Amino acid sequence: MNQQISDKYQVAFQPYGITVEANCGENLLELARRAGVGITASCGGDGVCGTCKVKIIKGEVESPPSLQLCNDEISSGFRLACRCRVMSDLIVEVPPESRAPVSEGHLRSLVTSEETLAATNWRFSPPVFKLLVELPQPSLKDNSSDLTRIERELESHGIQNARLNIILLKKIAASLRGGNWRVTLTVLKEPGGLRLTDIEPGDTRSHMYGLAFDIGTTGVRGEVLDLTEGRVLAQGVEYNGQRSYGDDVISRIAYAGKPGGLETLQRAVVTTLNKLINEMTGRAGIDGSDIAHVTVAANTTMVHLLLGLDPKHLRLAPYVPTAADLPALPSGDIGLLVGAGVPLYVVPSVASYIGGDIVSGLVGTGIFQRQETVLYIDIGTNGETVVGNSEWMVSASCSAGPAFEGGGIRHGMLATSGAIETFKIGTRSGGPVVTAIGGEKPRGICGAGLISIVAGLFTAGVIDQRGKFQPEVSERVRPGTDGYEYLVVEAHETGTGKDIVLTEVDIDNLIRAKAAMYAGYQTLLASVDMTFEQLDKVVIAGTFGSHLDIEDAVTVGLLPDICRDRFVFVGNGSLLGARLCSFSTDLVEAGKLVAKLVTNIELSENASFMDNYIASMFLPHTDAALFPGVTRQAMPSNKGSR
Amino acid sequence: MNQQISDKYQVAFQPYGITVEANCGENLLELARRAGVGITASCGGDGVCGTCKVKIIKGEVESPPSLQLCNDEISSGFRLACRCRVMSDLIVEVPPESRAPVSEGHLRSLVTSEETLAATNWRFSPPVFKLLVELPQPSLKDNSSDLTRIERELESHGIQNARLNIILLKKIAASLRGGNWRVTLTVLKEPGGLRLTDIEPGDTRSHMYGLAFDIGTTGVRGEVLDLTEGRVLAQGVEYNGQRSYGDDVISRIAYAGKPGGLETLQRAVVTTLNKLINEMTGRAGIDGSDIAHVTVAANTTMVHLLLGLDPKHLRLAPYVPTAADLPALPSGDIGLLVGAGVPLYVVPSVASYIGGDIVSGLVGTGIFQRQETVLYIDIGTNGETVVGNSEWMVSASCSAGPAFEGGGIRHGMLATSGAIETFKIGTRSGGPVVTAIGGEKPRGICGAGLISIVAGLFTAGVIDQRGKFQPEVSERVRPGTDGYEYLVVEAHETGTGKDIVLTEVDIDNLIRAKAAMYAGYQTLLASVDMTFEQLDKVVIAGTFGSHLDIEDAVTVGLLPDICRDRFVFVGNGSLLGARLCSFSTDLVEAGKLVAKLVTNIELSENASFMDNYIASMFLPHTDAALFPGVTRQAMPSNKGSR
Repeated sequence: MNQQISDKYQVAFQPYGITVEANCGENLLELARRAGVGITASCGGDGVCGTCKVKIIKGEVESPPSLQLCNDEISSGFRLACRCRVMSDLIVEVPPESRAPVSEGHLRSLVTSEETLAATNWRFSPPVFKLLVELPQPSLKDNSSDLTRIERELESHGIQNARLNIILLKKIAASLRGGNWRVTLTVLKEPGGLRLTDIEPGDTRSHMYGLAFDIGTTGVRGEVLDLTEGRVLAQGVEYNGQRSYGDDVISRIAYAGKPGGLETLQRAVVTTLNKLINEMTGRAGIDGSDIAHVTVAANTTMVHLLLGLDPKHLRLAPYVPTAADLPALPSGDIGLLVGAGVPLYVVPSVASYIGGDIVSGLVGTGIFQRQETVLYIDIGTNGETVVGNSEWMVSASCSAGPAFEGGGIRHGMLATSGAIETFKIGTRSGGPVVTAIGGEKPRGICGAGLISIVAGLFTAGVIDQRGKFQPEVSERVRPGTDGYEYLVVEAHETGTGKDIVLTEVDIDNLIRAKAAMYAGYQTLLASVDMTFEQLDKVVIAGTFGSHLDIEDAVTVGLLPDICRDRFVFVGNGSLLGARLCSFSTDLVEAGKLVAKLVTNIELSENASFMDNYIASMFLPHTDAALFPGVTRQAMPSNKGSR
Repeated sequence: MNQQISDKYQVAFQPYGITVEANCGENLLELARRAGVGITASCGGDGVCGTCKVKIIKGEVESPPSLQLCNDEISSGFRLACRCRVMSDLIVEVPPESRAPVSEGHLRSLVTSEETLAATNWRFSPPVFKLLVELPQPSLKDNSSDLTRIERELESHGIQNARLNIILLKKIAASLRGGNWRVTLTVLKEPGGLRLTDIEPGDTRSHMYGLAFDIGTTGVRGEVLDLTEGRVLAQGVEYNGQRSYGDDVISRIAYAGKPGGLETLQRAVVTTLNKLINEMTGRAGIDGSDIAHVTVAANTTMVHLLLGLDPKHLRLAPYVPTAADLPALPSGDIGLLVGAGVPLYVVPSVASYIGGDIVSGLVGTGIFQRQETVLYIDIGTNGETVVGNSEWMVSASCSAGPAFEGGGIRHGMLATSGAIETFKIGTRSGGPVVTAIGGEKPRGICGAGLISIVAGLFTAGVIDQRGKFQPEVSERVRPGTDGYEYLVVEAHETGTGKDIVLTEVDIDNLIRAKAAMYAGYQTLLASVDMTFEQLDKVVIAGTFGSHLDIEDAVTVGLLPDICRDRFVFVGNGSLLGARLCSFSTDLVEAGKLVAKLVTNIELSENASFMDNYIASMFLPHTDAALFPGVTRQAMPSNKGSR
């Protein structure tokens, strides 16, 4: 061994003109990364794919023989960067075909402006990569099987045990002949090794796309990703088709227990996903058959229903899921409209009520990498909260109901174009001023809008602390089919041609939802002996995106009344995490660690949760001292008794 | 290391009273096997299953710590035999639960009397074994997922990477709770390691059955096997449902090329298999859900059609199959009426026209273990021939057509009850004397019967060398719809109430079939510069079983005219091999080696094959010198011109 660990060498990367100091024996690919030099390494640096070829112009490296390099290349000085150890000062040329299209700057652009927190220090290294191979044509002298021919080639790349399935087997013969024995193999990186997942005729390496999904109880959000260049090509949102069978996870679990119920629910969500896939691939201008990987982040119930696993035990103590951390399964097993063998990866969950959506959010936002103590709140039909940092995390969850997604609200809708997102009582007119997403005519009320309206009406004294209308305060309050209702937008100003109203039932649904959320994090913090004041940050994930106004949320008692600059919105943290896990196996690994790090407390077993919940059923709270910053107009001037 | 290789010790096994000499360091389980002491080792001696517990009464062994033994057991002297090395004289007690129900004598009984050759020196060690585990019940303190609980247990048995599929996942929750956390896991031994294939509530270890199939182009034969005790519980035979779509592999391949053809053919053979499964499990008195493993031996075309793989390239030069050696696939992938996750193992093939049925025969009969040079002939719709020994093997195949299975014969049938198997012209009456299988009234003619009838009529001069009737020789020859026909059995003596006849077309089909076979082995032997006389044995496998009469077969020119004591009938070698592969992974491994050992020559590319074929289209052959032993009656006395 001629290792001299203490020695330092100078390594220059051409044509970049970047020189960096290296330790003796340091890995050349890692060094390039450290120096900010982008070198492609499709397989993640395992010596399998041969894409990280570099030319050693001057100096000495240690590298084992590689089947990825032909003799001509070796004698010309080409080596695989991932297999080289620096043994002297070096001049290294990165040839054009090895230059990575994804720079660190580009990686940062993978996070939208709305996503204000994101994981750092990860490599662009998707869970799948493609390998172009040219197989020797069969002859009467060597008419061994197609599969044998492929296996020989895989072995030369160090891939043993192709772990075949029937779907792949059926594609082999036509692909080999269609590509004239030049085919592209798609390979999945798994904990147990590498697995062949697809074979396509010809060179399809430039077409490698992924799908990322956040499957919520009410809404499903998806993205089409370019896994070659690291870009988001299209996004989409749809109501979860399971909504017809119950508003929340409890009612879905109940429905799944009926004869054929589980199959119906599975079909419903798969139909929603397939609709999104069609829409999004159409908009992205790509072919669904070029999808090579699917990542799903979802709560544990949604995962069970997606896979057709009986969710019954999720709601019975001790709340045990069938599986929390799953290997990638073939998409064909659940009927997704992508190649049947395409790996479907589900972000691991913590417990029955803290799912992969939360783990995905903790990973995507990089909270698992931070030393500061954060309260992570995912506001949705199922409300989940996690407190902790890179060292420890404790979670809790509660059922908030679908109000935040516009569910159970007379004119509720998802936060898409035409949804009312802000509401104010005009200071002069005394009438409402609303804005809708996309600047369009209002068509309904999204979660953020609902909170804004209730906050505005409460502040103006139109509703009282219990959420009941004070008809004498506003002439827009009128009797309706569900008791009193407030006329938010008149028919002639809406996109639907009908009045948009807010009913007392709507307000009641919101109060229950926000009470569950608030009681959830109140109880969680108490369980770790912390107060809101001790938190470094409150990170708000969930479906509100940028639409939620913090003041409104504090006014209704959804968020705690603390210094506003500690609040951070991260948009859909779950989808962010699913996207980033599609781009980097580093974050897939992080997800597994986070799922193990989090300790869950069951609120249903916690005596103080129900007390906290009941105390939260007021606007903003029974205990006004908790919300010193929330002020309310004195009883306003009488605008007539209507 | 205290190894003293030269030392010898005495090891006594109780309660058997068997004492055997052991080398220092020798493995105790292997020693017991050598001594004829049956010790259960479900996992084959890998230290996984814990079934080979023995008690060391006296003496010293070396054994690593094992999670399969509790502390009480260890302090009482219990050890796993498979992990023990003999370090002194020993007295070893085999407790009742570890005593193997399968002794070597019993193993020999696994081969039927009809199967006169069989592989030796193999361990009873089926590809699957069952493991009873008791999992800690979940609580609020440990409500980790069902799967995590199973994985922890598997890890304690050294099984990493359970390689789950959705079918198994769906069974987990109900099985754990149904068995009150005591479940039986079924584990498959694969080249890449161990794989979990099933989970069942409670202790089902005594119910572990397998299926073995020989899927022929015309007939499908199956067996239900007890994989715990090593017994054949039931056998069955059915026509292959694909028969409606073509008589031979060529016409099936052509049919598969039509729209929907491949799916139709797959469905047809799966329906046949399912019918056999129903029948056979019913007769065996077992539940289909207790089937834990399926072995299939079949020609390459049948394998492709069974798995739904396009067989097109099998008949186009250079005759490349999609796959020759496959990992076990889930039975559910093709719709077998067994648990969807039950492994379906296909015996590997050599080439497009030398399939797993031949490899299975070479393994099952033990030809791969022999030094003597053998000609192995599988007579069926596809006729295959192999010549060689344990060192080398060369194969060839030809299409004989379905005549040997009763196909394309007016009154042809499979060799089941009621099939005419022997035929003689009565020396006194001059009339035919026939016997039918099972001593029943004749219902038709099987392949052996067909050969017997043609041989008898040829010897008696009723048909000439070209297979044409001589109506003047026998009054039983009469004009029929296909030219002349011979009345074999009159209606009042048959089981069908109708005449059984033999037509000239039937004879012609037989002549073509036997000519293809004979030309096949003639060409094969020439290719290795051998003559029939140089063969130590001619092993006849195939569907005839014990029914074929050698003299008859030589008379028609199906078998060469050599010393009769070199012929050995082995019955259905393919099914024998499939059965033995179900009983022993040693033979599964042997199959892989044999498939690689055999070199195939393509007769369709061989100029002399067609010459040999045309020369064989006579009874027994154009070249009478090849069949000196075949004598023919002088033109018999005229029985009237009819």
